[in-house]
Amino acid sequence: MSNYFGLSRRLLAAMLLGAGSAGALAAPAVSRLTPPSELFASGNPNPPYIARFLPGQRFDLQATVRLDAGATLKDFQFSVDGVATRPAPDTTSVVTTGLTLPKDVNAAVVSQRAFSTLKTGVHRLAVRATQSDGQTVTAEGNFEVVALERDGRPAKNIIIMLGDGMGATHRTAARIIGRGYAQGKAKGLLAMDSFPYTGMVMTSSLDAIVTDSSPGMSNYVTGNKSSNNQEGVWPDDTADAFDNPRIEYLSEYLHRTQGKALGIVTTADIFDATPASMAVHTSNRGNGTGIVDQFLDDRHLTGLSVLMGGGRKWFLPNGDALKADGSRSGQPMNGSQRDDRTDYVLPADVVAGWKASPGKKDASRDLLADFQGSGFAYAHDGAALKTAMASKGGPDKLLGLFAYSNMNVAFDKINKRRGASTIVDDYGFPDQPMLDEMTGAALQVLAKNKNGFVAMIEGASIDKQSHLMDTDRWLLEVIEFDRAVLVAKDFAASHPDTIVIVTADHECSGASIIGASTKPVSALRDATSAPGLAAQRDAVVGTYQAAKFPKYTMEADGYPSSTDVDYKMLIGYGANADRYETWLANTTPTQDSQQPFVGKAPLSTYPDNPNVRNAKTGFMITGQVPGDQAVHTATDVPLSAYGRGAHRLSGVMDNADVFFKLAAVVGGKR
Amino acid sequence: MSNYFGLSRRLLAAMLLGAGSAGALAAPAVSRLTPPSELFASGNPNPPYIARFLPGQRFDLQATVRLDAGATLKDFQFSVDGVATRPAPDTTSVVTTGLTLPKDVNAAVVSQRAFSTLKTGVHRLAVRATQSDGQTVTAEGNFEVVALERDGRPAKNIIIMLGDGMGATHRTAARIIGRGYAQGKAKGLLAMDSFPYTGMVMTSSLDAIVTDSSPGMSNYVTGNKSSNNQEGVWPDDTADAFDNPRIEYLSEYLHRTQGKALGIVTTADIFDATPASMAVHTSNRGNGTGIVDQFLDDRHLTGLSVLMGGGRKWFLPNGDALKADGSRSGQPMNGSQRDDRTDYVLPADVVAGWKASPGKKDASRDLLADFQGSGFAYAHDGAALKTAMASKGGPDKLLGLFAYSNMNVAFDKINKRRGASTIVDDYGFPDQPMLDEMTGAALQVLAKNKNGFVAMIEGASIDKQSHLMDTDRWLLEVIEFDRAVLVAKDFAASHPDTIVIVTADHECSGASIIGASTKPVSALRDATSAPGLAAQRDAVVGTYQAAKFPKYTMEADGYPSSTDVDYKMLIGYGANADRYETWLANTTPTQDSQQPFVGKAPLSTYPDNPNVRNAKTGFMITGQVPGDQAVHTATDVPLSAYGRGAHRLSGVMDNADVFFKLAAVVGGKR
Repeated sequence: MSNYFGLSRRLLAAMLLGAGSAGALAAPAVSRLTPPSELFASGNPNPPYIARFLPGQRFDLQATVRLDAGATLKDFQFSVDGVATRPAPDTTSVVTTGLTLPKDVNAAVVSQRAFSTLKTGVHRLAVRATQSDGQTVTAEGNFEVVALERDGRPAKNIIIMLGDGMGATHRTAARIIGRGYAQGKAKGLLAMDSFPYTGMVMTSSLDAIVTDSSPGMSNYVTGNKSSNNQEGVWPDDTADAFDNPRIEYLSEYLHRTQGKALGIVTTADIFDATPASMAVHTSNRGNGTGIVDQFLDDRHLTGLSVLMGGGRKWFLPNGDALKADGSRSGQPMNGSQRDDRTDYVLPADVVAGWKASPGKKDASRDLLADFQGSGFAYAHDGAALKTAMASKGGPDKLLGLFAYSNMNVAFDKINKRRGASTIVDDYGFPDQPMLDEMTGAALQVLAKNKNGFVAMIEGASIDKQSHLMDTDRWLLEVIEFDRAVLVAKDFAASHPDTIVIVTADHECSGASIIGASTKPVSALRDATSAPGLAAQRDAVVGTYQAAKFPKYTMEADGYPSSTDVDYKMLIGYGANADRYETWLANTTPTQDSQQPFVGKAPLSTYPDNPNVRNAKTGFMITGQVPGDQAVHTATDVPLSAYGRGAHRLSGVMDNADVFFKLAAVVGGKR
Repeated sequence: MSNYFGLSRRLLAAMLLGAGSAGALAAPAVSRLTPPSELFASGNPNPPYIARFLPGQRFDLQATVRLDAGATLKDFQFSVDGVATRPAPDTTSVVTTGLTLPKDVNAAVVSQRAFSTLKTGVHRLAVRATQSDGQTVTAEGNFEVVALERDGRPAKNIIIMLGDGMGATHRTAARIIGRGYAQGKAKGLLAMDSFPYTGMVMTSSLDAIVTDSSPGMSNYVTGNKSSNNQEGVWPDDTADAFDNPRIEYLSEYLHRTQGKALGIVTTADIFDATPASMAVHTSNRGNGTGIVDQFLDDRHLTGLSVLMGGGRKWFLPNGDALKADGSRSGQPMNGSQRDDRTDYVLPADVVAGWKASPGKKDASRDLLADFQGSGFAYAHDGAALKTAMASKGGPDKLLGLFAYSNMNVAFDKINKRRGASTIVDDYGFPDQPMLDEMTGAALQVLAKNKNGFVAMIEGASIDKQSHLMDTDRWLLEVIEFDRAVLVAKDFAASHPDTIVIVTADHECSGASIIGASTKPVSALRDATSAPGLAAQRDAVVGTYQAAKFPKYTMEADGYPSSTDVDYKMLIGYGANADRYETWLANTTPTQDSQQPFVGKAPLSTYPDNPNVRNAKTGFMITGQVPGDQAVHTATDVPLSAYGRGAHRLSGVMDNADVFFKLAAVVGGKR
């Protein structure tokens, strides 16, 4: 057994112990080999999981080598199919300090950056490392290079419409509100419903059945699995969050090989997991300063031409020096949140291998000025966006920052436009564009690139408001998102060399359409005035035929007149935490905890704990998960596809498979 | 406005009042016109809902005419596109007694049975009725006849795999258990996952966004919308549950036009909503005696050749006469449940129009003998089924009744086969086949018909156990169902003139994969020994990366060794009622309330109220809907398609649309 597939005894021991318990590993041994493969992790020669790449797609090779106490690493060599790899100068490195391993473990992390091969098929990856005393250890894993399928004419443009957290229920519920049902049938379809092909997507991440938004997006555009909270990288054993083994993004691959541009649009803070997972490589989704810097500084790699969303706080220079205890004084709430602790300086091997910008710890950087200095037109609100787009067919590059952090939600933006609410004023950003307006601008700019583009348009607060179980707010988020889908669909109809997919990174909250209220709104208000009585729940929750067909009136602006209609649709949450439920729209909206409020609105009116929502009026529902927010679920999510090559996107598929399908649709060159 | 689209003033008044408030209607007027249409209901000339038919597909025309007090109906006439319809003799009728209208309403229900037309397009339907005093009223509605799309070679066989209540979560969760995940990817796919095309299906019924299983199935195979609890009919204003306006079933249409056979296989009681909604016309899904009689007596219409499931209670003669108070004495628990009150005698116009068997109130009928006398081989258990199939290539017609009511679930059947449980013995049916075994037998019999067949194979207790939030039991139901899917797929692979679809009638319970236990089973047992402590929930529910990848060991029989594995997957319910949750498999299984138990097991060990499940140990979860069971939701359900014409089944579609897609796949003749 010691020679099973050529594995050393020590490696086999490592495998049997498992990487997770590698702290107790004998040394020398290899405790991690990247790209991750089941062959390495379990010794299974017919692995169900294997890292997969396009021909020529770049990725890092890395291994963690446990050393005997006091020993150092003398030498290392990666090989593929038994042939030693030939790294470019300065693209290999050995890291022996700043490791995250237990203190009593002596180890080195060895890397070769930006490896690629054109040869298709399954390849055997090996690493051999020699300790200072001459002892040698080896480890084997594998990866696959997938031949690009080609049929039909290639598409030029890819538009990914990403409804964050949007499962089947979110789509169905938005259709019921937005289109209405009569006698059993939808009176109309959502734009996303009208796409001719649908698939179901498995959303798990590298480390769990339940993903967060980082790998939820990253897996679609690297073809590989990242771990939760990580973006465009695999896990490693170093503390540096920007040095992890990288996988080339779809945007990087297609910019390098075909000169395509990249556009990123979101209703979230632009540093958030989904937008960052299109273009930024880091193992910590929280590193806002570095993430926004990398957007700009590595635009030569990604082709970034459009960046729109919230998050202005990262773009302003922070002149307020850190104190020794990490606190600051004098920084205004709506000022800069740039911080050296969330910034980066890349190691030399990453810079050399990837031709990446080295980065700098520069909290005082004026990133806004740097974007503008790099040719980006800047729009700070809806009016400025319109003005920018009206001038000479719009700019060639566009930056839009419409909020301090996450943008306000459609519910509140629309209420402001109708003159019915001051929430967006209180928030300090009274003129925020809707997602369809941002999408139209983005596609107008991106279409200028003769080589085509990759665009990712995110409806971010479908997820954020589902976490908060703020039903009416996420419902309007889906409607806002679908209006952006229509813009993308119309673009593809007039640019038939385009594919549009609508999908989600994961489901959020286990949302379920349980029926409709059997009472008018007035009775709901009466019923909820006395808290906690289960009998009131029984009186208002109408199931089956008692649900009938909830009727909402849609205004010319595309949104319902009110979500508090008599006999309104009711939503339950399968992944819920404790909360008080009134079934009525929250006039004091729940708050995304990442979103600070400024100005008139006192924080106390925006409880970020659903457990105390609505001042404890309503029916107490004890949830099924701990914490105070609903969580993501592992349920497959629907995907819809329209345009050239859309037929490839049916069936049940893994999120990483979507990368290869999209590459096939655009007929990637190497 | 009185001449708006030729509507009489009285009719317009009726419309403005709405059919629902028609009790207050002036008379004479038409308060209901069938087929239902939005044109009639609302006067909307561009209807979002319109009854749709295949060329030549039969359906009933019907109207309810309100009359002045003391008046009678003198005459009526239906017309289509302004031309009076020409009914066959005895196929029209006027019903004036036994109506369900308020007592002070004088009315007549007029019908013309089994109408059809070959002319495609939207047709205007009108009825004119003349009161005894000569007053005339008219009403207009519409319907559409849809030209059959044709492309490619027609399929011969249709197999509908119906996972009752199976939403996206049920599928994902069964994959996680049955195939396992490693490093973010499923180690294998379910059989249903391997189908090349997927769609999303809107499941609403004629009267509500949330359907029950009757229209959930019926809509797929009539192309029209039925109301909750109704099967192959539209609602009417008569008390008789078997005289409702009928729509010709797919099985009836294809037996009449192409000589196809029908096979129905279920793990439920055979009278249950899903199987009955393939072949039986009634407005009350509870009419067990009449439903099973109609299966046999109208086999000349449906081509019924295979009927398998539970429900033996309906097939035994009931010699125990009813008492005046409706009670019986002496009827054994496992004896007959036949009852004249759930039986039928059809009105003459239905018999004449549809050539249907007239029916008889015959609680004492020996239906088992009648099936056998009609050439059906009968299998009463698994061994008998094998014997029947082994003889000369199996019978030409097959009846299998394997349980008193619903069959036992896979969890308990498998435990019995492994010698680990006596539940199926206690239940009185120790040798019940698995669904894949029943499916294999059914397809073997059906394949004998040279003209092809329509088969519906139902995994019924996915729904029933989801209602009960008995997680581990519905999980094994999905696995059992998927093994039957594999049998169907293999059949289609060797019979390429076959299309297989896998779908659901609706989602049940709002099931959500919320993560996995952070504790081993032993700790779960400890944690749940003290009831009601929310802190224990917090300690065991692992979300996101804490969920990791739950690992189940699969046995050679295709089912997990145990569902109580350490760090097991956890499910939440978005449409849940109150319950106590231990996260452990129920060794005293919850009971479907329709399923009486006999023999050794005392009912008290099978609580049918989840609220008192597990003797109140575990975490009390207060639900979001009233009652003691989780309910159906309105969420779209996934559909998978394999075989000839499968490409037609992608995209978002209504359940009624599936009928037209299947008809196009088989290239229906008229």
